[in-house]
Amino acid sequence: MEKKTIIEKEIVIETDFLKKNDEIAERVKKMLESQQVRAYDIMGSVGAGKSSLIISLVKRLKNEKRIYAIAGDLTTHIDADRIKNAGAEVVQINTGRECHLNANTIYESISRINLKNYDLIFIENVGNLICPADFNLGTNKRIVVISVTEGPHMVLKHPYTFWSADIVAINKTDLAGYVEVDPNKLERDLKHVNPRAKVYKCSCKTGEGIENLIGEMLK
Amino acid sequence: MEKKTIIEKEIVIETDFLKKNDEIAERVKKMLESQQVRAYDIMGSVGAGKSSLIISLVKRLKNEKRIYAIAGDLTTHIDADRIKNAGAEVVQINTGRECHLNANTIYESISRINLKNYDLIFIENVGNLICPADFNLGTNKRIVVISVTEGPHMVLKHPYTFWSADIVAINKTDLAGYVEVDPNKLERDLKHVNPRAKVYKCSCKTGEGIENLIGEMLK
Repeated sequence: MEKKTIIEKEIVIETDFLKKNDEIAERVKKMLESQQVRAYDIMGSVGAGKSSLIISLVKRLKNEKRIYAIAGDLTTHIDADRIKNAGAEVVQINTGRECHLNANTIYESISRINLKNYDLIFIENVGNLICPADFNLGTNKRIVVISVTEGPHMVLKHPYTFWSADIVAINKTDLAGYVEVDPNKLERDLKHVNPRAKVYKCSCKTGEGIENLIGEMLK
Repeated sequence: MEKKTIIEKEIVIETDFLKKNDEIAERVKKMLESQQVRAYDIMGSVGAGKSSLIISLVKRLKNEKRIYAIAGDLTTHIDADRIKNAGAEVVQINTGRECHLNANTIYESISRINLKNYDLIFIENVGNLICPADFNLGTNKRIVVISVTEGPHMVLKHPYTFWSADIVAINKTDLAGYVEVDPNKLERDLKHVNPRAKVYKCSCKTGEGIENLIGEMLK
């Protein structure tokens, strides 16, 4: 009986939350479209390389695009500082105990800036491969960053997040040999889980594959 | 207004859920105590090495202790199979989209077995460094496994999970040089965030430090 009660509550809450979130995400999407700003929801687990990817993107694109970044994190501003040092304007969103960003936080963030001043917005979601997937932020593309250090089975073990991904970056390929994980195996699993997703093997550290990934993002 | 409504709902739900969870956790704790079974909630992000640690523990202890393992995962039984192959009895709990185990799932799992037949229960929580921390499972100890591949700032960025940890295993020390992350820096951050936690540097791959960690766990 107890279990049943808990499950029923969860369903009611989830439907309610997600419906509300989708409504706000639609508003965010329209705001971005009206100013021709392209936004990217960058998701991934702790240490997958979300900040490093954004830093690579900022360094490569800052002279040709006007970039704004939104860095989601529980408590610190470490990532925001790193992205700022790379040359982008950044706002830090501290979520406290919350395990994901939601559309309302993005709506509030972009309401405070003049969207006319930007071409691209990179949103770094909270380091978590599960919860952020349910919350549409109204972005143009969802990018999931994974790392070979997360093990050979990590794609099959977390299918939900990949279902909604437009692009998946398999990061830290330079470590593949050391951790004995084959990036091609991860790529095959990704194609199986979500044949629609574009998959790019890369290393934010060495720069390998980053140019192709940027090409795909700007398509 | 919209934001306020969402936050109010979250607080009500959370309190309700956590209170119910704590009640069931207390029941689990009493069941375990009555049969002198010791249980461990093993938490950590994707690929930190939770399964590998349990496999190391099983291999090392299976001839002197009677071990049962509970493997939490969204959809697959990959980890349960690996732990079973190491020589432990295992049950797999697939949580679907749920990002953590809760006390009720543990209560149901241990209600199906005869606790008299076991000395130790290892519970592998879902790969997520944020959500599992809120849900007490009624275990004797909470162990958080982190990896040097998760970056130099990962402790400071996720303080909540470490607050409730009895033991923290800094895993994959054999990769520290390659990823340029100093395990001593992570250890210092852990001592700052939770001075009560016992911190052990180890590598499940090479076996370094595992013996000391086991000694601490069995204290």
